[in-house]
Amino acid sequence: MALEDVKALFFDVFGTVVDWRMSVIRELGVFGSEHDVEADWTEFADDWRGLYQPSMDAVRRGDREWRNLDTLHRESLITLLSRHSIQGCTEDQINHLNRAWHRLDPWPDSVEGMTRLRTKYILATLSNGNIALLVNMAKRAGLPWDAVIGAEPARAYKPLPQCYLRNAEYLALEPGQCMLVAAHNDDLAAANALGFRTAFVHRPSEYGPNQTKDLEAEGDWDIVADSMPEIADKLGC
Amino acid sequence: MALEDVKALFFDVFGTVVDWRMSVIRELGVFGSEHDVEADWTEFADDWRGLYQPSMDAVRRGDREWRNLDTLHRESLITLLSRHSIQGCTEDQINHLNRAWHRLDPWPDSVEGMTRLRTKYILATLSNGNIALLVNMAKRAGLPWDAVIGAEPARAYKPLPQCYLRNAEYLALEPGQCMLVAAHNDDLAAANALGFRTAFVHRPSEYGPNQTKDLEAEGDWDIVADSMPEIADKLGC
Repeated sequence: MALEDVKALFFDVFGTVVDWRMSVIRELGVFGSEHDVEADWTEFADDWRGLYQPSMDAVRRGDREWRNLDTLHRESLITLLSRHSIQGCTEDQINHLNRAWHRLDPWPDSVEGMTRLRTKYILATLSNGNIALLVNMAKRAGLPWDAVIGAEPARAYKPLPQCYLRNAEYLALEPGQCMLVAAHNDDLAAANALGFRTAFVHRPSEYGPNQTKDLEAEGDWDIVADSMPEIADKLGC
Repeated sequence: MALEDVKALFFDVFGTVVDWRMSVIRELGVFGSEHDVEADWTEFADDWRGLYQPSMDAVRRGDREWRNLDTLHRESLITLLSRHSIQGCTEDQINHLNRAWHRLDPWPDSVEGMTRLRTKYILATLSNGNIALLVNMAKRAGLPWDAVIGAEPARAYKPLPQCYLRNAEYLALEPGQCMLVAAHNDDLAAANALGFRTAFVHRPSEYGPNQTKDLEAEGDWDIVADSMPEIADKLGC
């Protein structure tokens, strides 16, 4: 199929559409101020994200039943609060802090570029985030989704093939009618192996000043761009 | 929980948000003109909808594996084409005609009222329609959903309890934080029995001039209204 056959753009979300790191650092700082707790919140945020892939691995392997990302994030948060010797939080405080991931800010170019892309394409999430997380994030940030789907309704975390394929099926599209937009080469490679078209967007500060991964496109992606509006330009939107 | 605790409005779609009957009659008429086929398209549309509940029953009972509504609609369409002695359609023609259900027009007040409601609430589908059907419908009609979920990701057709409950879970809400908006008393009764709040909207011509059902609210619903803007008025949007 040709690039003209693409009907839907699926987006990775954490790092691609939103700046999870600075947003989570900010939310942790607010939590610290409100509850008079001091910690290295930058390190805490990076540690929390560091537990992200390992927390999904047991579900991917089938060693655990399906658990959505809010649940996995919360388990990691409990581990880290203990590790940083932060004690005495109420359940409500922990739940509010866990939902920091529902309050992530978009990169400055995301909403403008996506709004242009939406005039021509169906825009859908293809995130490991769960539906509530993504809906609350979109409502707060003004992200213009047509469909909030992804790992949770597919009951499979990326990069498992069924995550990509079930999401294409939810839109009644063939993989070749779908394009994944992502800042991560491994995500694009997994989608492309199944027939998805691909757009790489540079997000060189996703992991902060010392980022070592995904600084360059490492595959033969259909589109390589520095921003969402540049993807819109290249797709004629 | 009080009415003030409601965070999300879930909408029934066929009949409540969109006028399926006049839209399907129109689509059948276009099909007839294009392919030089004559039939009583009003009767055909009513017959097609007549097969809707029976087609879901086998899935509800568990006698069949999950099949989404596009698949069930298509099986019913094949039955009716044969019954009306309409022969020689290609697969592409049948698929296009089956997607008449993706091209339904909203009632004239739906978009205005929902746009107002969306300023205060999460708006989500709680339809037996599948995701592709609902996304394509929304894209064409400008329906302002925050979340397109419903029977398909829940893998259960209304009025089975798990359809309502799994959709509340997808938004990480308790049933009492959810309100179902519907033109059908039986749908509201099923949701209310599980703790959902309820809004009845009169759609007295959904089934045409001889409609006999759902002409009046038959339960103690939280809201009874003649239009979506009236629901917005009553919810202070």
